[in-house]
Amino acid sequence: MEFEPIGVIHTPFQTKEECPMQPMYALGAVGKVEVFEPYASGLRDVELFSHVYLLYHFDRSGEVKMFRPPFLDDLPHGVFATRHPCRPNGIGMSIVQVLKRENNVVEVAGIDVLDGTPLLDIKPYMPRFDKIDDASEGWLSEKPPRPKPAGRE
Amino acid sequence: MEFEPIGVIHTPFQTKEECPMQPMYALGAVGKVEVFEPYASGLRDVELFSHVYLLYHFDRSGEVKMFRPPFLDDLPHGVFATRHPCRPNGIGMSIVQVLKRENNVVEVAGIDVLDGTPLLDIKPYMPRFDKIDDASEGWLSEKPPRPKPAGRE
Repeated sequence: MEFEPIGVIHTPFQTKEECPMQPMYALGAVGKVEVFEPYASGLRDVELFSHVYLLYHFDRSGEVKMFRPPFLDDLPHGVFATRHPCRPNGIGMSIVQVLKRENNVVEVAGIDVLDGTPLLDIKPYMPRFDKIDDASEGWLSEKPPRPKPAGRE
Repeated sequence: MEFEPIGVIHTPFQTKEECPMQPMYALGAVGKVEVFEPYASGLRDVELFSHVYLLYHFDRSGEVKMFRPPFLDDLPHGVFATRHPCRPNGIGMSIVQVLKRENNVVEVAGIDVLDGTPLLDIKPYMPRFDKIDDASEGWLSEKPPRPKPAGRE
């Protein structure tokens, strides 16, 4: 199936080395989500939400492997048990904080994607559906949060 | 950009009228997520997580409109402020509970998609990234949860 970018995400991050691994490591990072004109009217009321999901295309990811060690572990896991960008159908997902909207541009905090990333969709974060209080941490359960090393994969 | 299904989602729901609107309305509904063989090894350790995101293609959605009233409200909102299936790039997202995995099939609870829906990706639900405790409800904040009516859009 064929998908088209509906916009582009502007961020401070030009290289993978600069780019945070997840929004929680990028709390200070502000980006601008530009939605192209044909879709701009679909943004109405997005600014009522404190958080949204961005779906986007990992357009600069590397070789797809079915399992490998992710950033947060030294042991290999299946790609579908990780959020690694090198995956079949390179669709990325980040939850970001909505700061404000001006026409077709949504300013967001906690952005963790490369500058120029093609935007596929925006969905509101709805706590009654998305906040799972009893979710397990999977293989992460014994891994403390760790800061991003300089040269992460 | 071109994406290919990596699998197919088997559910009890043959029509939109039967299909729950969100996983929270489908807690008893069990489905099977079949991942095609070339990708099956990527499932390793998925079963360690209690919940996963399914990304899939809304392959039977209707006309895309930039704003309309969603299921949970009588007022129109921009499509990106809703989870409506009729959206540019019809990518759906559901958080489901993992019951078990047998080889290339993951049995899940809380499934809310039509039988035969093409699967695009599976990502683990990681509470440290995905559970946003202070997220607002947006336009939903004054809407009580309501059961799915018989003929929802």
